[in-house]
Amino acid sequence: MKLKELAERIGCTLSGDGSVEITGVAGIEHATNEQITFLANPKYAHKVKSTKAGAIIVHASAGDVGLPALLSENPYLDFARALEQFYQPPRPEPGIHATAVLHSTANVGPDASIGAYCVIGAGVRIGRRAVMHPHVVIYDGCQIGDDFTAHSGVCVREATRIGHRVILQNNVVVGADGYGFAKNMDGSHYKIVQSGPVVIEDDVEIQSVSNVDRATVGETRIREGAKIDSMVQIGHACDVGERSIICSQTGLAGSTVLKSDVLLAGQVGVSGHLTIHENAVVYAQSGIGGDVEAGAVMSGSPAFDAATWRRAVAAFPKLPAMVRAMRQLEKRLAALENRRFKEEE
Amino acid sequence: MKLKELAERIGCTLSGDGSVEITGVAGIEHATNEQITFLANPKYAHKVKSTKAGAIIVHASAGDVGLPALLSENPYLDFARALEQFYQPPRPEPGIHATAVLHSTANVGPDASIGAYCVIGAGVRIGRRAVMHPHVVIYDGCQIGDDFTAHSGVCVREATRIGHRVILQNNVVVGADGYGFAKNMDGSHYKIVQSGPVVIEDDVEIQSVSNVDRATVGETRIREGAKIDSMVQIGHACDVGERSIICSQTGLAGSTVLKSDVLLAGQVGVSGHLTIHENAVVYAQSGIGGDVEAGAVMSGSPAFDAATWRRAVAAFPKLPAMVRAMRQLEKRLAALENRRFKEEE
Amino acid sequence: MKLKELAERIGCTLSGDGSVEITGVAGIEHATNEQITFLANPKYAHKVKSTKAGAIIVHASAGDVGLPALLSENPYLDFARALEQFYQPPRPEPGIHATAVLHSTANVGPDASIGAYCVIGAGVRIGRRAVMHPHVVIYDGCQIGDDFTAHSGVCVREATRIGHRVILQNNVVVGADGYGFAKNMDGSHYKIVQSGPVVIEDDVEIQSVSNVDRATVGETRIREGAKIDSMVQIGHACDVGERSIICSQTGLAGSTVLKSDVLLAGQVGVSGHLTIHENAVVYAQSGIGGDVEAGAVMSGSPAFDAATWRRAVAAFPKLPAMVRAMRQLEKRLAALENRRFKEEE
Repeated sequence: MKLKELAERIGCTLSGDGSVEITGVAGIEHATNEQITFLANPKYAHKVKSTKAGAIIVHASAGDVGLPALLSENPYLDFARALEQFYQPPRPEPGIHATAVLHSTANVGPDASIGAYCVIGAGVRIGRRAVMHPHVVIYDGCQIGDDFTAHSGVCVREATRIGHRVILQNNVVVGADGYGFAKNMDGSHYKIVQSGPVVIEDDVEIQSVSNVDRATVGETRIREGAKIDSMVQIGHACDVGERSIICSQTGLAGSTVLKSDVLLAGQVGVSGHLTIHENAVVYAQSGIGGDVEAGAVMSGSPAFDAATWRRAVAAFPKLPAMVRAMRQLEKRLAALENRRFKEEE
Repeated sequence: MKLKELAERIGCTLSGDGSVEITGVAGIEHATNEQITFLANPKYAHKVKSTKAGAIIVHASAGDVGLPALLSENPYLDFARALEQFYQPPRPEPGIHATAVLHSTANVGPDASIGAYCVIGAGVRIGRRAVMHPHVVIYDGCQIGDDFTAHSGVCVREATRIGHRVILQNNVVVGADGYGFAKNMDGSHYKIVQSGPVVIEDDVEIQSVSNVDRATVGETRIREGAKIDSMVQIGHACDVGERSIICSQTGLAGSTVLKSDVLLAGQVGVSGHLTIHENAVVYAQSGIGGDVEAGAVMSGSPAFDAATWRRAVAAFPKLPAMVRAMRQLEKRLAALENRRFKEEE
Repeated sequence: MKLKELAERIGCTLSGDGSVEITGVAGIEHATNEQITFLANPKYAHKVKSTKAGAIIVHASAGDVGLPALLSENPYLDFARALEQFYQPPRPEPGIHATAVLHSTANVGPDASIGAYCVIGAGVRIGRRAVMHPHVVIYDGCQIGDDFTAHSGVCVREATRIGHRVILQNNVVVGADGYGFAKNMDGSHYKIVQSGPVVIEDDVEIQSVSNVDRATVGETRIREGAKIDSMVQIGHACDVGERSIICSQTGLAGSTVLKSDVLLAGQVGVSGHLTIHENAVVYAQSGIGGDVEAGAVMSGSPAFDAATWRRAVAAFPKLPAMVRAMRQLEKRLAALENRRFKEEE
């Protein structure tokens, strides 16, 4: 594809030679002269000089960068859109595979692709254009919107409600029992039935091997546009806010509330029964044990203000030296104290 | 159901109007006037005044709480039992689905429900009333007791032994190879066969996406009544004690021994070849690198006594200020030292 | 088997009575007089005296240890090889199960064992002697070498390339979409198609429930001989070096590069877009936020030199006492300062 045509397709302004032939997209360090790359993070601006890319997507304000460019208000988004011109994930053939087991009361909308060995339970309703790869199991009573994508190994448990355009990557579990036990008088544990369904709103994506538990009572809810990375654990009765980002291996204990646009980095732990307010950011490996204010940036285990944390962890390796220094100070101080001076009257 | 009838069913003492109609159970903040709620944690006692619940389960000692109540010696347990009056998880129809593949030498007890596409290997024996949802795989030679429940995506590997009333939630793996490699002289890794089975005793429940590895030699054992949350990793040759509680995303490296009634909170790491003794409690995100005494309460990475830890982490954010303060002290001390005093003879 | 025969089979030098009958292998504390044990770690040398084992594998330099012994240059490796004489994991019967769904364009090499309900997509090529347990799904276009082993629940996504002798334990996911989103102007997230395949080189093993994401562009690569433990997350476009060891529940964010022979202990987090160089070692629960030098040993979150870290964490519990001690020092210093001395002129 000529660069000029790509510019038109993704709606960017062409700067420089539009006749360059572009056959794909690559990172700034790996791109060849038939590939287009992008500069989204100014931190990497110095790499533009040495890139071998045939063209680059840059911010409209970048000016001449020395190679053919597509000017964009949002280079990272337009990189994503450019990539789609060259790569589309394979879409399974439409139709319901002969081996799929659909309960007689299940209802699957038109233009679906239901793969081999899928199992769809009683009373399930699925909207239009569903793509279920082989080996997806939908338990009884689930309600699912249009444009649902579920990859192999996905399990969706009883009575889950799922909106439109939801994507579940491989081996995701939605709606399995939450971890709830009452203690018997003899110290043994009594299982509490988990009655509340999971509700997943529109435009949510959950990456592979993540798990969203059903609620003891009430519901567990993932709100519109939230994106959940791999191996994330969402405990029972959590409420994950709109457009929240939860990175890999993070865990939310039961009844955690995330308001909208929260960002939790990887391996964060949240202790549950608390609220993290709008636009809060929590750094990787942090532990959250109480409410977090809107817009706060937190780090550490237990977490506190990230700017303070940065200084504290910078000081931490010096702790042994501090201990020694304090002993010296104490000795010097004692020496001074032990000297007997003539005091003024 | 009238409150009076609920009282009789779960064996609580009625206090107040027994004619209230109860249609379900809910948390204290969400309950409506047709729902019953509960107060188990005195921390939330102040919420009783504002609840809209039609009735409440409280401790027998609570006295009049201003709304119809069921008096209980164990309110959280009776909440669980009340919930069962209104919700029972769906139980699949009995019978063995036509698509299930049972080896000719496998033996499944009476009243089983074996779902679509289950695979049961050679020599497997399963007790009475098993419920296996679709897509459960039991490898050769497993021995499983009565009232076994396995959800879709469960894999039970060769020669695993499982007791009565065991529940495995979705995508749990039991008995996969432990992580064992010997080093060849050239630095490459030589796989060590993992010969030892997993043994799961009675009344164990393992939540979704958790993994219990088989042992190199000997066995990996989960003892009676232990409850394991989601995404927990149990390494080879571990021995998890009776009634232990292991919260989500915790990992036990190989040959960890937990004695009975141990509680590990979420995201704990245990380095293996060590023993955590009876009734020990380990807080979330802690790292355990050595034996833990019975009844100890530990926190931190690496972990130490939790009360000390609490004071240490409270001091931690002040570390940069301490560094500065020490510099000031040193300056002041040096200034004092440099002043030349007349000493007493 | 007589000890003498075992010595011959695994190529060790016999020391002592070769007529001892050996029926199995066990750890030094559990072995009976019909079992052979081993001493690989000198730390456990004191246990040799009390072992009830019938024989022991020890280093050739050990001398007489008081019981029949096999002398070895690499006792741990020879323990592994001895174990194989007594235990071989069950191998499913050869043949393609009647219920396996192979696309007409898929090609499976000779002597394969393809279990019930396996699904193999269009254009897939698999080498000789593959063992796929029931319920393995291979998406379209995958290329897989000889001696492939995949356990139940494994999903291998589109266009993955896998070398020879690769083992994937249960519920492993390879090639699911990486976590990539661009921000729309309204704050919502725009999914970036993940075009780059996963490449797994020869002799890699991935333990159960681990996940290796495909790349946005380029590829994600696991190099020859790397061994990945359970519940590990490998983000998009990572490059894991030859013979690297990654322990359970560790996570690599996108574009992490591990050079050869790196060792990451359990629950480590790596923030991505960085390089960990040859032979580096990272202790459990550490957080890596920048490049790591070859041969470095790191610990902590964020991580620094492990020797320094050990001293810092030893000092950490004393932090509250330090705060108090500093207050005392300050008071004593102020008291000194407030005394009015006669200074020398």
